[in-house]
Amino acid sequence: MNKNIDIAVIGLGVMGANMALNLAERGFSVAAFDINENRRTDIVKRHQPLTAAKLIAVADLAELINQLETPRRIVLSVPAGPVVDIICNDLIAAGLEVNDIVVDTGNSQWRDSIARADTYAGKFSFFTCAISGGEVGARFGPSLMPSGDKAAWERLKPMWQAMAAKVDPITGVEIARTHVDQPLPEGEPCAEYIGPIGSGHFVKMVHNGIEYADMQMIAEIVQFMRQILGMSAVEVGEVFSEWNKGKLQSYLIEITGNILKVVDEATGKPMVDVIMDQAGQKGTGNWTAREALELGVPANAIAESVFARCLSTQKSIRQVGATKLAGPTITLEDRNVWLEKLADALYCSKVCSYAQGFELMSAAQKEHNWTLDYVSIAKIWRAGCVIRAHFLDDIAKAYQAEPELLNLMLADRFTNTLAENQMAWREVLAKAIMLGMPMPSISAAMSYYDCYREADSSASLIQAMRDYFGGHTYRRKDQDASQSFHYDWHFGSGEHKVQH
Amino acid sequence: MNKNIDIAVIGLGVMGANMALNLAERGFSVAAFDINENRRTDIVKRHQPLTAAKLIAVADLAELINQLETPRRIVLSVPAGPVVDIICNDLIAAGLEVNDIVVDTGNSQWRDSIARADTYAGKFSFFTCAISGGEVGARFGPSLMPSGDKAAWERLKPMWQAMAAKVDPITGVEIARTHVDQPLPEGEPCAEYIGPIGSGHFVKMVHNGIEYADMQMIAEIVQFMRQILGMSAVEVGEVFSEWNKGKLQSYLIEITGNILKVVDEATGKPMVDVIMDQAGQKGTGNWTAREALELGVPANAIAESVFARCLSTQKSIRQVGATKLAGPTITLEDRNVWLEKLADALYCSKVCSYAQGFELMSAAQKEHNWTLDYVSIAKIWRAGCVIRAHFLDDIAKAYQAEPELLNLMLADRFTNTLAENQMAWREVLAKAIMLGMPMPSISAAMSYYDCYREADSSASLIQAMRDYFGGHTYRRKDQDASQSFHYDWHFGSGEHKVQH
Repeated sequence: MNKNIDIAVIGLGVMGANMALNLAERGFSVAAFDINENRRTDIVKRHQPLTAAKLIAVADLAELINQLETPRRIVLSVPAGPVVDIICNDLIAAGLEVNDIVVDTGNSQWRDSIARADTYAGKFSFFTCAISGGEVGARFGPSLMPSGDKAAWERLKPMWQAMAAKVDPITGVEIARTHVDQPLPEGEPCAEYIGPIGSGHFVKMVHNGIEYADMQMIAEIVQFMRQILGMSAVEVGEVFSEWNKGKLQSYLIEITGNILKVVDEATGKPMVDVIMDQAGQKGTGNWTAREALELGVPANAIAESVFARCLSTQKSIRQVGATKLAGPTITLEDRNVWLEKLADALYCSKVCSYAQGFELMSAAQKEHNWTLDYVSIAKIWRAGCVIRAHFLDDIAKAYQAEPELLNLMLADRFTNTLAENQMAWREVLAKAIMLGMPMPSISAAMSYYDCYREADSSASLIQAMRDYFGGHTYRRKDQDASQSFHYDWHFGSGEHKVQH
Repeated sequence: MNKNIDIAVIGLGVMGANMALNLAERGFSVAAFDINENRRTDIVKRHQPLTAAKLIAVADLAELINQLETPRRIVLSVPAGPVVDIICNDLIAAGLEVNDIVVDTGNSQWRDSIARADTYAGKFSFFTCAISGGEVGARFGPSLMPSGDKAAWERLKPMWQAMAAKVDPITGVEIARTHVDQPLPEGEPCAEYIGPIGSGHFVKMVHNGIEYADMQMIAEIVQFMRQILGMSAVEVGEVFSEWNKGKLQSYLIEITGNILKVVDEATGKPMVDVIMDQAGQKGTGNWTAREALELGVPANAIAESVFARCLSTQKSIRQVGATKLAGPTITLEDRNVWLEKLADALYCSKVCSYAQGFELMSAAQKEHNWTLDYVSIAKIWRAGCVIRAHFLDDIAKAYQAEPELLNLMLADRFTNTLAENQMAWREVLAKAIMLGMPMPSISAAMSYYDCYREADSSASLIQAMRDYFGGHTYRRKDQDASQSFHYDWHFGSGEHKVQH
């Protein structure tokens, strides 16, 4: 055996096959394995110039192990869950060695990754790499969030940075490639080491939570245009394509423009109107919201976007609600007055949901003793992934300027834009409320913003109630934080200092 | 040994001691145990007429077991967590028998209760009873949510119903008692069997989630009165005392009125203004929100009340935010215009958060094969507990009239009130948004209401995006729900039916 193949990819579904082709195209030799023979044959056929030179399919794990340069690099692209462990154990049985690296690229839960690193310690180096960008990204340049042993990363880094999406280092803009005939882009790669095992998948989970909020907020703005401004789907699509040239530029704005212009052939209606209004979930947004609760981070705009998807599935109850629950009559508003305000509202809300995502990472790093580099994370997200946008270059610059930023909203560049746009944001939301149109995520973002503007909040009353009915004690604004007090609300004997 | 004592109470903290006294006063003989000698001495001293006749303190678990009538009834009032298991094992060692019943009344997580019932199966009957009402409730009449083996419940029922809070069966109003000199009330007891093990603590968890939302919404309304109507704490307190006579009547409205009228002796300021505006949590509201996410129930108003508490603790960031984040200038509004609208807004929001709590129970009973009786649960909550209110009698009547109610908002009595009050609710919220005052839970409730008024929602666009970037497919409104489709958004080859 030669033992000179650079890397193996196990699991030749769409993602795995595309990663294998991406790596081969970037000049690395790849051994590709799948239990399914058709998939092995397909990948070799699929791109002859590449496969002839750089990509071989292997039908047996022991053979795969024998072909690889040591310490070995093996990528798993298999469904999250028990399959990961089955293959890890098969690899051990096939001769995997202690310094070999296995990289899980599936949608694993980040806590499972930590547990697996423990399980396989001493047998091989279990590493994870969260990947965003879907099938096109996997083939032409994904956003990669690797985590695990730092030494393993050093061995993976050249391949990872070659495979990743690229950003122009001067402009901060993605150098897109979506077809094999386009030249291979060079630039800043969207792949940097995130931290200890689990942290990369945590960061990817937060990415997905932000993605949920982005999508929900866009959907709310589109609904305003269609219901309150009376615009057609195509008209709204044109506005989004226009917005994609300005401060809102992002992949999700771009595809919203594209989607809204598509007409269904069967009915002649806008495609978006024939698609069932029940949004699915694969769980990562939901995990993000639960993690926020567990860490005590007020990620309400993200949570609302998850709840909105849950609510969307209850179509039959909504249909009853539409006939029984009273609301105001909608009178159409002038689009010339509102379009710019809507862009402002979307921008402000977006700042808040990103602030929530970064706060969540900040809480997690304290909890788990990670050292997350927010500049690097924002840069990784600038291209390749679903939330890619120039906006993320602004976030990177904000953390670069102020690494100890208390909250993203408080970075000068965002504080100023929020100040300029906040009245338009309020007007949009107040108008929607008065006309009966729900904007759950945008409302939550507004509450978040205004809660952070309160030096003194109504939480005093809540704490007083807790002391009243449960004797939970309170602290005083004019006393040291170490002092607790209880007031005898029932019998009027006043305030007592509570001993700890 | 006599073996004729009716029941034992283990753990003589405030809750356990008060339950022991409550049971003794209701005519049951009680053996009280605590490892702490002072607590044993205290309870015997504390109420001589009772203790002489009905209550003994016991210093040894074996002796306790010997004194009890069989099958034994033992109440645990100990901290949730490992202590519960330590005592269960001590009781087994001390001679507990298979038909004996141990009732955990602590704040245990409901999943832990299910696990414990498995652990102790064949050794004794592990039963749980969630209890609400704090120390006063435990002494004079709590709200009780028992769950576990049905046969065990039959043996506990007479004691539980004697000990519980009582409601006038005609008016549905609590017959309050807060002092030993008042006569023992008779009426409908706030204690009914909830269902299999774990279900009682689940229901109590939902109670606490609703309680969080109630408190947060009240705090938001109070803040509106003080900041936007320029009212003093005492003036607001007087409004709440007045509101407590009408449709908003409830314990939390009552104590808000009381709290707001209290003046701090040290400073002469309203007590509520010297209390630190950082609200604590013991976790049950947080569990409720996480459970909602796990079950896919859009309990956004409850979740917002949890997030609001999390945010309140970040006082130092709020203080920076207050100086840096721009907002509108508040101009005072006329209280005569707004007070009634505020009551309407609070009422409507409350209907939504209760709807969310009941939907959560509905989802849980499907998931766990429970058969929850919503009429009975609403009745249990009418008295004794923190959310006690006449409103819960209305909820009981709504489920009585329509056991298959799709959502509490759709019960005629609530639909009609919502219809009458929804414009006022919108005006309050829109005004708060335009003046920069956050109302996170009331906003979430409004979104919830308006989302349920949408027969066709913006979720179509979200699903289209998911199909666009991830190939997640969609269903069509004009096709059977079993059919999935994928649209080739990138290359224009149109729509394809997806085979499963």
